[in-house]
Amino acid sequence: MSDLDLVLERTLNAPRDLVWKAWTDPEHLKRWFAPRPYEISEVEMDLRPGGVFRIRMTGPDGFDTGHGNPGCVLEVIEGEKLSWTSALGPDYRPAEMGDGCESFPMTAIVTLEDAGNGKTLYRAVALHANRADRDTHDKMGFQEGWGTCAAQLEEIAQELAATA
Amino acid sequence: MSDLDLVLERTLNAPRDLVWKAWTDPEHLKRWFAPRPYEISEVEMDLRPGGVFRIRMTGPDGFDTGHGNPGCVLEVIEGEKLSWTSALGPDYRPAEMGDGCESFPMTAIVTLEDAGNGKTLYRAVALHANRADRDTHDKMGFQEGWGTCAAQLEEIAQELAATA
Repeated sequence: MSDLDLVLERTLNAPRDLVWKAWTDPEHLKRWFAPRPYEISEVEMDLRPGGVFRIRMTGPDGFDTGHGNPGCVLEVIEGEKLSWTSALGPDYRPAEMGDGCESFPMTAIVTLEDAGNGKTLYRAVALHANRADRDTHDKMGFQEGWGTCAAQLEEIAQELAATA
Repeated sequence: MSDLDLVLERTLNAPRDLVWKAWTDPEHLKRWFAPRPYEISEVEMDLRPGGVFRIRMTGPDGFDTGHGNPGCVLEVIEGEKLSWTSALGPDYRPAEMGDGCESFPMTAIVTLEDAGNGKTLYRAVALHANRADRDTHDKMGFQEGWGTCAAQLEEIAQELAATA
C-alpha cells in the first residue's frame, strides 16, 4: 500500500459469492452503493475491461450528481476482484473530471476473500495520483461513506442468502 | 472514430509478425519510436494489462524528456493489438500530467492487420478527452511524427526479415 491510497477493510457476515452478486448486479448495487438516505438512481455497469461504470446519486435537499461521469472497468475476476477508474471513460478514452467526488481521478480496487465460517473479507482500495487528491478524498469522508456502504452491502448479501 | 481522435494509417511492406516484433521488443522500439534525429534513450515496457510503458526521448540542442511519465498498458493481443494510456500509471494508478506531449492524457490503440503479399496495415489511434487536447496533439505534429516513425518501423521490420 502506498501513502497515496485509502483503504477500507471489513469482514462481512455473508459468503463471498453472494457479496460478489450484491456488488455486481446493478439492481442490487443500487440498494447499497450510496450511504442512506442517499440513493443510487442510475447504474450503468458493463463488467469487462473497457466497459462503462457510471452511477447517479441523489439525496436529501435536492442533492444530485446528475448524469455522472462514466468511468472505465479495468479488471474483472469473477468472485474475487473488480477494478475501475474515473481517469478513463468507456473504451479507455481519457476522462474529463467533474465536480465533488469526481473532481480528481481515482482508481478503485475491490477484492473479496473467504474469511471462513461463511464470512468474507471485503477490501476496497482507492488509488490517487498524489497526496492532495488522497487527502481531499479522505476529508470527503471516504472511511465513513465506504464503511456505511459496506454494512449495507452485507445486509443485501444476507438477504440474498435468506431468499436463495 | 470520434472527432476527438487522431488516426495514422499506413500499409507497411513487412509481415505482421515482424512489425509486431519491432513494436514490442524494447531494443527494436528504441530504434524507430522517435523521429530521427530524436532518439529513445530509455524504454520500460511490461506487456500486460496494468504493466508500465515509459520512454525517454532525447534529441538535438539538449532536448530531453527526462525520466518521462510512466504510462499503463491496457490491452495486449499478440500480433494484433496494443493499447496503453498516459491517464494511468503502472498498476492503474491515476497519473499526473507532465510537460509537452505529456501535458494532456491520451490513450493510444495500435492495431495490425494482414494486408496481403506480406504487407501489414498499421493503424495508430490517439484518443483524447476533449477537442482542445486533440487539437493540441494535432498541432504538435501527430501525423508527421507518427508517420515518420511508421516508416522507420517498416525499416526495422524489413531488417528483421532480412536477418531471419
